[in-house]
Amino acid sequence: MIDLYTAATPNGHKISIALEEMALPYTVIAIDLSSGVQKQPEYLKLNPNGRIPTIVDRDNDDFVVFESGAILVYLGEKSGEFYPTDAKQRSQVLQWLMFQMGGIGPMMGQANVFFRYFPEKLQPAIDRYQNEVKRLFGVLDGHLAENQFLAGDYSIADIANWAWVRTHNWSGVDIVDLPHLTRWVQEIAARPAVQKGIEIPKRAEPEDIVKGVQSILVR
Amino acid sequence: MIDLYTAATPNGHKISIALEEMALPYTVIAIDLSSGVQKQPEYLKLNPNGRIPTIVDRDNDDFVVFESGAILVYLGEKSGEFYPTDAKQRSQVLQWLMFQMGGIGPMMGQANVFFRYFPEKLQPAIDRYQNEVKRLFGVLDGHLAENQFLAGDYSIADIANWAWVRTHNWSGVDIVDLPHLTRWVQEIAARPAVQKGIEIPKRAEPEDIVKGVQSILVR
Repeated sequence: MIDLYTAATPNGHKISIALEEMALPYTVIAIDLSSGVQKQPEYLKLNPNGRIPTIVDRDNDDFVVFESGAILVYLGEKSGEFYPTDAKQRSQVLQWLMFQMGGIGPMMGQANVFFRYFPEKLQPAIDRYQNEVKRLFGVLDGHLAENQFLAGDYSIADIANWAWVRTHNWSGVDIVDLPHLTRWVQEIAARPAVQKGIEIPKRAEPEDIVKGVQSILVR
Repeated sequence: MIDLYTAATPNGHKISIALEEMALPYTVIAIDLSSGVQKQPEYLKLNPNGRIPTIVDRDNDDFVVFESGAILVYLGEKSGEFYPTDAKQRSQVLQWLMFQMGGIGPMMGQANVFFRYFPEKLQPAIDRYQNEVKRLFGVLDGHLAENQFLAGDYSIADIANWAWVRTHNWSGVDIVDLPHLTRWVQEIAARPAVQKGIEIPKRAEPEDIVKGVQSILVR
């Protein structure tokens, strides 16, 4: 059994989608990020960066993995699914996973900060990040024009990028003029495991949050 | 032989340092980023994101790898060095590599943009990124208080993080109050392969740049 510390964010959904796709049994510990529990010493022992997601693999000496990209690789290796064993294919999956980790994720994250959350309206910063997101979406669209998925068969690279790209409206960036990206977003959205994964954890269930906090605090 | 398309930036230096550490033979093709050659169709065939670094492994059917994090893993697997074969140790290296790819790199990059390059002085944006870089440096410092390196022995995770952290002054963030991070920065800086790696490519050698551009354009 795997313990999954998570919240309803793109990085959290990457892991719940992957666990559903791989049919690995797991327990959800919902973290209420607004409570700050993820910055408590008990949680920092698991994840020194104080972020979600984190997993603890109870069937592997309570091995802890943080950073969503590293969790995806760990789960891909554990399940033998969605992460090829062939060295070249595996590298291609990792290249597009890194593209998400270093590009799509951070840039959409910054677009969200300045477009949605920042106390001041800094239009040049909003423009910078929305433009960079558009550029990165264009890279994906161009690649998907000639490829059904990002790296051979459907893989953890698709899961990682999809969990972010599907939230493009939240970043204030539309994809109507990107037909290949739109096709790929819709195709992955139709997968039953993906539909389950994006509902985990349920949003705003106070009792789950309390359980999550308690679980961390007693560790 | 490996062809390395690179420039004198932290992401470029990650790869030249790794190649030097692993003693893998390679040819440097210096890219003048200001020329825009990295956005030319010939280069985009190698790296659809139009960024450096990229490698082409001439000894492996001209296999192309882009994204610095994926290149480090590829080289670690190829050489059998600085990337463990033990699954748990390998995951720990990957966790700290992802921490650099998704955290240290993008956040120092944004600090540099607003502190050094942006046409307007947006102090709230400068503050945001310098504060986030300080927070991330604090995570590294805390971890390095109890560990000589980031994940067991010296690894590609140290190379990736070090190539960025050493440039902290350029981001306007000092590390004087972080003794463990400072110790680690100095210890890695003393390695001969690292000293070689950060001199590649030499800055501003016009003939190298011309060679680099020509090499891309004839491909």
